[in-house]
Amino acid sequence: MLPSFQVDPDSDLPIYRQLSDHIKESVRSGAIAAGERLPATRELAGLLGLNRTTVSAAYELLENEGLIRGHVGRGSFVAARPAGEHSRLDWARLTEEFDEIAGAALPRVGEVHISFATSRPSEELFPVEEFRLSCEEALRAPHASSILQLGSPGGFPPLRHYLADEARREGVLTGDDDLMVTSGCQQALDLAARVLVRAGDAVAVEDPVYPGLKNTFLSRRARLVGIPVGPRGMEIEALERALTRDNVRLVVVTPDFQNPTGESMPAESRTALLRAARKAQAAVIENDIYGELRYEGERAAPLKRMDGSSGVALLRSFSKIAFPGLRVGWIVAPRALVARMMEAKQWTDLHTDQLSQAALLRFAESGRLEAHRRRIVAAGRERLAAAIAACERYLPAGTRLTKPQGGMSLWVRLPEPLDAAELAPRVQREGVSYLAGRYFEVTRRDPGALRLSFAGLAPAEITEGIAILGKVFRKELERVRGQSRPEPATAMV
Amino acid sequence: MLPSFQVDPDSDLPIYRQLSDHIKESVRSGAIAAGERLPATRELAGLLGLNRTTVSAAYELLENEGLIRGHVGRGSFVAARPAGEHSRLDWARLTEEFDEIAGAALPRVGEVHISFATSRPSEELFPVEEFRLSCEEALRAPHASSILQLGSPGGFPPLRHYLADEARREGVLTGDDDLMVTSGCQQALDLAARVLVRAGDAVAVEDPVYPGLKNTFLSRRARLVGIPVGPRGMEIEALERALTRDNVRLVVVTPDFQNPTGESMPAESRTALLRAARKAQAAVIENDIYGELRYEGERAAPLKRMDGSSGVALLRSFSKIAFPGLRVGWIVAPRALVARMMEAKQWTDLHTDQLSQAALLRFAESGRLEAHRRRIVAAGRERLAAAIAACERYLPAGTRLTKPQGGMSLWVRLPEPLDAAELAPRVQREGVSYLAGRYFEVTRRDPGALRLSFAGLAPAEITEGIAILGKVFRKELERVRGQSRPEPATAMV
Repeated sequence: MLPSFQVDPDSDLPIYRQLSDHIKESVRSGAIAAGERLPATRELAGLLGLNRTTVSAAYELLENEGLIRGHVGRGSFVAARPAGEHSRLDWARLTEEFDEIAGAALPRVGEVHISFATSRPSEELFPVEEFRLSCEEALRAPHASSILQLGSPGGFPPLRHYLADEARREGVLTGDDDLMVTSGCQQALDLAARVLVRAGDAVAVEDPVYPGLKNTFLSRRARLVGIPVGPRGMEIEALERALTRDNVRLVVVTPDFQNPTGESMPAESRTALLRAARKAQAAVIENDIYGELRYEGERAAPLKRMDGSSGVALLRSFSKIAFPGLRVGWIVAPRALVARMMEAKQWTDLHTDQLSQAALLRFAESGRLEAHRRRIVAAGRERLAAAIAACERYLPAGTRLTKPQGGMSLWVRLPEPLDAAELAPRVQREGVSYLAGRYFEVTRRDPGALRLSFAGLAPAEITEGIAILGKVFRKELERVRGQSRPEPATAMV
Repeated sequence: MLPSFQVDPDSDLPIYRQLSDHIKESVRSGAIAAGERLPATRELAGLLGLNRTTVSAAYELLENEGLIRGHVGRGSFVAARPAGEHSRLDWARLTEEFDEIAGAALPRVGEVHISFATSRPSEELFPVEEFRLSCEEALRAPHASSILQLGSPGGFPPLRHYLADEARREGVLTGDDDLMVTSGCQQALDLAARVLVRAGDAVAVEDPVYPGLKNTFLSRRARLVGIPVGPRGMEIEALERALTRDNVRLVVVTPDFQNPTGESMPAESRTALLRAARKAQAAVIENDIYGELRYEGERAAPLKRMDGSSGVALLRSFSKIAFPGLRVGWIVAPRALVARMMEAKQWTDLHTDQLSQAALLRFAESGRLEAHRRRIVAAGRERLAAAIAACERYLPAGTRLTKPQGGMSLWVRLPEPLDAAELAPRVQREGVSYLAGRYFEVTRRDPGALRLSFAGLAPAEITEGIAILGKVFRKELERVRGQSRPEPATAMV
């Protein structure tokens, strides 16, 4: 409580200084305790018969001196003691090592009209009402209160059993395997990295690869070995060389619709990968986040099902086939790995949120998930076709692109000397965004590369956006080549 | 597809061997591909006109040889190649380092009648219907589909703004602070450890302390410095000595209702802690997970509000005041720390689940959270009183216990030579469980200590459970002291 204050009319000090000195003295003497709230400026002005701006000026001075904290006028609190020489903590000193290992942050992409930058599903396709019903049913079920109670690191038991049964039916969960729920595939990668990777260990990943995957292993101080991705996915001969040469401990691979390239591995490459990993005694993480988003062609068997060596951990998620805002994924892997990941999960976040687990279980069991999946596969097929057609029509001659049979992204390589990172801001001024290839590179530079994530956009937007890209790219090409060219004919390749 | 098979009646081999050889050859020749599903035993038996047990025997043989995987009869899949010498991956080799740093796992407590082992709220008090309504309202709101869409590492924006406004009003979020949502307090600890702690760094924690907190820092290979907890919480003189002697980088403290002791720090100790940490340039993590569960007395100001040095990170959560099954917590800390934690969160789990964030926001905004908090505070007050009364009545003479003014746990020290860990299985056979002190110890051994978490039990259960504990403990005391004593009078201390 602030002791009473009297203005000294004979003082040389202005009133606001008199007031701030008074408050300072009250803190020093202990009449006002640290953490105590000072009266609001309006209130104190009323009490003391002063002008409110006088009180504000006094508070501002005290705040600048570190004696009080808080938003002036809204509530100010007495700090533990006046600021001295060492008064502020130097956070930079404490975060030095983190700053060193932190990967390149993704660019902050401003609001644009048409964004190809994020690999996410289309919000317009979300069946919000059906999901709301699933939530309601889950919370009206008997024992619904157990959803709200502390859970298990392995996952909400009814969902875990449901997923395990499905996995058994599909032949990806057998004998010594177990299944645990994770907060999305991203957390499964992180937990696997915690359990398996020591500083300096070599981990083979695709090059280019999704930055979230790269950063997870870099944050464990792993040594990343980039394996090129070709039309048959991760290139097996390069992998075999790396396994021999680099003492690779772990291979992380996305065999279906790899992010960012969209490429998939045929069955023979999968067999060869398993054989090579097994020979080198390296574990395999199969990141199967897009596998169910196939728009054409036949799906090759998952590595997990082909593997006879208990050497594969399979990662899946509801994020891409349902809703990325709900963080529910799962891993099927030998017990030896899952048991340790559950242990690591306990001190990471105890367990995955149970409300979404219960609601997604209901969404799946009721058949609504499968109906939704069919709708997004139909939409994805149309969008992929629109993206490929627009690229062929609008992008400059000499552009190469992947032709995925599913997933969410295309990988585009512009003709030399175009630089996708340099062109990104220019494209953004036209209301369009994408991610330049450099965010995905491990060691191989590919300045002309960029990722177009098409799944979140309607076909008309895709066409419009790629037409704008084409205009900017062609203009730049004309400029650097110092020659003017006619507008391109349709159907360029 | 399995090529047609004919039984050779002249062969010396039994039919099941002929069949398994035929399948093996079909795999070797590529007629059946790796990952392909074999017909179910019943189906194949029908096709070939064989007995089903013959087909099962053939499959079993192939499974034992590692050529096929899966549950016989339910679906079997061809593995990539027959098992050889190095056929199985040796996971133990890959998890060696993890096994070394992994803390002591908590005991698997079997199902018991009355469990004092888990610090969680009472399920009977959960207002499931009110929460269901909050969920429904959140999912009926305009823009509800944004809940299901990919979110931000900082949290669901409407919840983040709500929490920041509350924190500003309370004076714990000022000038250069920011707020981010985490998947419970546990994840806030984990992210802070990732950003701030290097292998070998000294981190001061209370001793005894919650194992989840201990393990989080141990998994970063921190060197834990245990600071004793007395009736005024973390002992400041011991902390001051440690700060000087051990070059402590980080102080992690629970100033209100510390887990496991239930002790709280008075204002003077808080001021002294801040001064000492500031002098040593150590950051302070204030784990304020129980602060709102005060049953009597006045709350001292949070460290975060008293601090004038931007050196405190404040951790809070909905887990204890609402529902632990929903993993939503938050941290208020200087931007320098929060920005890096958001970066780390991206590669940990992208962001916290948004359904629970949206539902809890609605639960809070609607006033239902505050009504619920009042109910659990009233229930907690009754339960704490019942626990203290029962301890005083039933536990053996010489037992010491803490007398918290809130929270979820009591800390009990049995008279020598009783060993709480040794007695736990015996107590469990009587249908009661608790956690022995050894799970909470950092360096100080206290074999007679145990934690009684009372908040999840009704008063009658508390009394019944503690009466059973008392019976077992007294009996053991009589045995070891080799003398028989009369039944204790009431009101022992």
